[in-house]
Amino acid sequence: MSNPAAPPVAIIMGSQSDWATMRNAAETLDALGVAYDARIVSAHRTPDRLVAFAKGARAAGFRVVIAGAGGAAHLPGMAAAMTSLPVFGVPVESKALSGQDSLLSIVQMPAGIPVGTLAIGRAGAVNAALLAAAVLALTDAGLADRLDAWRAAQTAAVAERPETEHP
Amino acid sequence: MSNPAAPPVAIIMGSQSDWATMRNAAETLDALGVAYDARIVSAHRTPDRLVAFAKGARAAGFRVVIAGAGGAAHLPGMAAAMTSLPVFGVPVESKALSGQDSLLSIVQMPAGIPVGTLAIGRAGAVNAALLAAAVLALTDAGLADRLDAWRAAQTAAVAERPETEHP
Amino acid sequence: MSNPAAPPVAIIMGSQSDWATMRNAAETLDALGVAYDARIVSAHRTPDRLVAFAKGARAAGFRVVIAGAGGAAHLPGMAAAMTSLPVFGVPVESKALSGQDSLLSIVQMPAGIPVGTLAIGRAGAVNAALLAAAVLALTDAGLADRLDAWRAAQTAAVAERPETEHP
Amino acid sequence: MSNPAAPPVAIIMGSQSDWATMRNAAETLDALGVAYDARIVSAHRTPDRLVAFAKGARAAGFRVVIAGAGGAAHLPGMAAAMTSLPVFGVPVESKALSGQDSLLSIVQMPAGIPVGTLAIGRAGAVNAALLAAAVLALTDAGLADRLDAWRAAQTAAVAERPETEHP
Amino acid sequence: MSNPAAPPVAIIMGSQSDWATMRNAAETLDALGVAYDARIVSAHRTPDRLVAFAKGARAAGFRVVIAGAGGAAHLPGMAAAMTSLPVFGVPVESKALSGQDSLLSIVQMPAGIPVGTLAIGRAGAVNAALLAAAVLALTDAGLADRLDAWRAAQTAAVAERPETEHP
Amino acid sequence: MSNPAAPPVAIIMGSQSDWATMRNAAETLDALGVAYDARIVSAHRTPDRLVAFAKGARAAGFRVVIAGAGGAAHLPGMAAAMTSLPVFGVPVESKALSGQDSLLSIVQMPAGIPVGTLAIGRAGAVNAALLAAAVLALTDAGLADRLDAWRAAQTAAVAERPETEHP
Amino acid sequence: MSNPAAPPVAIIMGSQSDWATMRNAAETLDALGVAYDARIVSAHRTPDRLVAFAKGARAAGFRVVIAGAGGAAHLPGMAAAMTSLPVFGVPVESKALSGQDSLLSIVQMPAGIPVGTLAIGRAGAVNAALLAAAVLALTDAGLADRLDAWRAAQTAAVAERPETEHP
Amino acid sequence: MSNPAAPPVAIIMGSQSDWATMRNAAETLDALGVAYDARIVSAHRTPDRLVAFAKGARAAGFRVVIAGAGGAAHLPGMAAAMTSLPVFGVPVESKALSGQDSLLSIVQMPAGIPVGTLAIGRAGAVNAALLAAAVLALTDAGLADRLDAWRAAQTAAVAERPETEHP
Repeated sequence: MSNPAAPPVAIIMGSQSDWATMRNAAETLDALGVAYDARIVSAHRTPDRLVAFAKGARAAGFRVVIAGAGGAAHLPGMAAAMTSLPVFGVPVESKALSGQDSLLSIVQMPAGIPVGTLAIGRAGAVNAALLAAAVLALTDAGLADRLDAWRAAQTAAVAERPETEHP
Repeated sequence: MSNPAAPPVAIIMGSQSDWATMRNAAETLDALGVAYDARIVSAHRTPDRLVAFAKGARAAGFRVVIAGAGGAAHLPGMAAAMTSLPVFGVPVESKALSGQDSLLSIVQMPAGIPVGTLAIGRAGAVNAALLAAAVLALTDAGLADRLDAWRAAQTAAVAERPETEHP
Repeated sequence: MSNPAAPPVAIIMGSQSDWATMRNAAETLDALGVAYDARIVSAHRTPDRLVAFAKGARAAGFRVVIAGAGGAAHLPGMAAAMTSLPVFGVPVESKALSGQDSLLSIVQMPAGIPVGTLAIGRAGAVNAALLAAAVLALTDAGLADRLDAWRAAQTAAVAERPETEHP
Repeated sequence: MSNPAAPPVAIIMGSQSDWATMRNAAETLDALGVAYDARIVSAHRTPDRLVAFAKGARAAGFRVVIAGAGGAAHLPGMAAAMTSLPVFGVPVESKALSGQDSLLSIVQMPAGIPVGTLAIGRAGAVNAALLAAAVLALTDAGLADRLDAWRAAQTAAVAERPETEHP
Repeated sequence: MSNPAAPPVAIIMGSQSDWATMRNAAETLDALGVAYDARIVSAHRTPDRLVAFAKGARAAGFRVVIAGAGGAAHLPGMAAAMTSLPVFGVPVESKALSGQDSLLSIVQMPAGIPVGTLAIGRAGAVNAALLAAAVLALTDAGLADRLDAWRAAQTAAVAERPETEHP
Repeated sequence: MSNPAAPPVAIIMGSQSDWATMRNAAETLDALGVAYDARIVSAHRTPDRLVAFAKGARAAGFRVVIAGAGGAAHLPGMAAAMTSLPVFGVPVESKALSGQDSLLSIVQMPAGIPVGTLAIGRAGAVNAALLAAAVLALTDAGLADRLDAWRAAQTAAVAERPETEHP
Repeated sequence: MSNPAAPPVAIIMGSQSDWATMRNAAETLDALGVAYDARIVSAHRTPDRLVAFAKGARAAGFRVVIAGAGGAAHLPGMAAAMTSLPVFGVPVESKALSGQDSLLSIVQMPAGIPVGTLAIGRAGAVNAALLAAAVLALTDAGLADRLDAWRAAQTAAVAERPETEHP
Repeated sequence: MSNPAAPPVAIIMGSQSDWATMRNAAETLDALGVAYDARIVSAHRTPDRLVAFAKGARAAGFRVVIAGAGGAAHLPGMAAAMTSLPVFGVPVESKALSGQDSLLSIVQMPAGIPVGTLAIGRAGAVNAALLAAAVLALTDAGLADRLDAWRAAQTAAVAERPETEHP
């Protein structure tokens, strides 16, 4: 019933403006050689699209869903309500409350419907991609190697001492 | 298409435990002589029921929706996404965060899909009923009179001086 | 006693500086073909004007009041204390606390006097207008159609995929 | 125009339930020999009483107003909007938000209408009385002496070492 | 023992950088014709100066103290601990926490030592001056008139309608 | 190198007192027929145990790590720093700050080291188990069926109407 | 000038009620064989005692000061302003705000006057003692050994697995 | 075992970007004539480096550790878990939450492992250096004199009156 040729990761976001954050997830997946499909799915403005996407996600061949939204961010939780695929949520930084509303709207899900939530903003988007890759790497030795290499490179890139300006 | 015999107000809530809060809305509507239908509709555990309810609310004859939920409270906003009836949201007090998560999840809706949000907990439930009555009273002179009487009685019940214990 | 020629919506705000936010309510009502009257009514600096406005709102022909204010935002709640018309409150973003004070001052009304509160800032102003329109549309089929069309257009405007920059 | 026989301090509060907090102001004034009048004035449920009280406060002979309220606490600020007497506000601890809403609703007044705000709850009520006494003591040498004695006694009552349980 | 020629209001602040905020208190007192003395008194960096100031404030002829500070703002409370003159505190907006730390450090005084706290930032500084004037006006009919005139002018300056841009 | 007989899920927690929360993860995994190993690993009191566990987790045969901790909750993030297995974090409710410290300490990880964070307290523990099961179900059809059955039962258990007390 | 027979640690607290928290510092120092002197020093109610204590602390032979206070907690910072000994602050849990006010009042000191701040409540009191011991252990090999033994015992006391109830 | 020629203070930070904050600690130590070693040690990206550093810190001759980090800031607490040297933590201001996450992640350590925490950002970095110097000055009379001189100069630099602009 699933589609083996489909990309394993769906990146969904509530609006075009969320792309500035969520592109960091996309770029991280690119760096790890993981295919994805990036879509705008607004829980509030396109609820039918949300239902269709979430109910069809498994059959479409997706294995992990990354969902980013801001403010009263209902997209990750509502997607999780309609699929049993793992859903990872990215709280997009909001204007007035700096993403505190986004974070609580995503992470404080009731028992029964999980959303694995990452940090507010860019770091959260990068990490949603890394977590998706970690899940996929459980059954993809090549990806596991690439993920380990990515992390080793990250470790190697940390300088021993801060670069300081000279007087 | 609508059903004139249907009660004008729907009270929906995310779980049985929300009834302790939402019953205050029901009792206030009772006091004002406004009929209602109280249902459990969980955005997360019964998303199909939510879609059916929200899309059918106008045709079912409802004129105002009162929705109460706690934590990552998606019910009011998702109902509002699927009906253009007025939706009033009641943030139910949550355990760890005392309803701060409920409040932000309900009130911080993006432009385009409004939820008129009331206070956290019991006061919010009472006021959702009063606000629904105020809306219905715009075209129901009898209800307008009952609402004015209710408020006049409320004013009259405020004592001039605090009752103090005697030494 | 009411004035059928009066605009159905009053938009009141605490100061000139709130107009930058509240104009979004006005523009949304314009788009929906709903007439309104926009006034500055400061609860603190012009309390007499507030009393006169709120007590006379129904007789003046208003059917819904939209009230925006920031900081210790008392305007929506005090207006609601003196009229039984539906009052919708818009927390204007404040300087130091980003509207958290505005939000709590408006939404945490005691049982008995409801204010349907929208999101902080511009989104809240747009949504106050949409909520007012939803209320008026209950007895105005033309407006109901325009509101549905507005929402359908909003849905249609959501692109399927984010616009991404090319390398 | 004023009434020299009137008590110099008015203690007003939003509801009977606020008395549990505000009685601490009353008892502190009792201890300092300062007369007061304690009244329930609800900004929301009795706005006419509020207008009458605040506009008439100076003529009635009051010199300082102490106002306590909780939640969306509009009483202190609205009283201050209608009198130029000094107004001191006491944020009563609220149920869900522990008085954070009360505090912000009282203290974040816009430029032009001051409310001198004290701590949340009992300490704030005691201190509102002490601050009122400090104001009155500027022109009442007897009260100044009593206030100094009260504070000296307070200092003297602080033990040098904590009382510890013995093993 | 007091000095009748001394200005009645002391404005103290924790550092030079607080002047950007506290000058609003000074300018408001200027507008009301109330003399003041503005000084830098750092609770942390100049504790001896603080002790000398606070203990000597009454004898120096001051009648009201306005104290502004930011962050862990101890100046208002420590001044209040060493004088029984009325002390009004102004939370200066801090960099990381936007004055939330300043506000709590000033307003949450324990029972026994009151600080009448105003809003964070500029509005608080203006209002501290107005509150000081209200206190002094209790025994200065000329000032009472000027204060009433100031407030009447403020009321008169509120336009009826927002100035809107034309299309 | 891995151990196919090992349970796929490790549940680690910072102290015995966290078991009251984390047992909900264990019981949920029991209900789904997923084996697990529950251990106390304190990042602060047993850092060597943490290093040994995290570095050896993959070789030990674990496929998913669930980590619960409270306050300055470093366990989930430090485990994630030393394994590339998926790590899901549960913020345990803390005494003074109700888990707000736990939540921020777990979810606000920097880019590079992801922790999928669940809700504060019991709901978060249940959901960590469900999310772990969702990950494992990607390659375990039997578990996928059990997880779907669990969720269907959850949906079926939601009553249509609240149970209300009769008068 | 110093007094070698004096205990090296002073534990000061703002009131008797703080002893319930600060006794945990005392008991921890007892366990480590570090002498201390516990005193009540209220910054607000006994400012002279504070000045005398802080200015005389070094000459009295103290080497480290532990200061606990709640609410607008000025004691640690004011002590630090008048001694250059290391000062460690313990935010005592407050009633309304659960110690958030205490924490910010202690930790957000301006550049120039440091207070090393520990966690809110009991954990903070224990840790203030451990930190004081760590400082003293820098020049006391016996104490260093006892501190290491204390920490080794703490590590050894962490069970491998949670104690679970049997069915 | 220790190295008397080693600098007494280690300044560690989670990333290069933290240097903008932590350089204030370095510059303050420079001003006091205290040698230090500044290193990048990321708890998350270089956990092995963290273990090696913390376990070897005492033997390397360090006497005090200053650790700065932002967001889910685990560096100070994890360093403290692996050394019994005094550890002082500096919460670096984070983007979305302005360092509130950093502060809670550092200060809310459980009983048993202390981190003396300073203010968010630059002030905290300066004060961590001053606190480290205060510790070292306990057994270094020259440093004690320099620290006292530094503080006396700081006091002397506080002007009596604010510099005000002339009209």
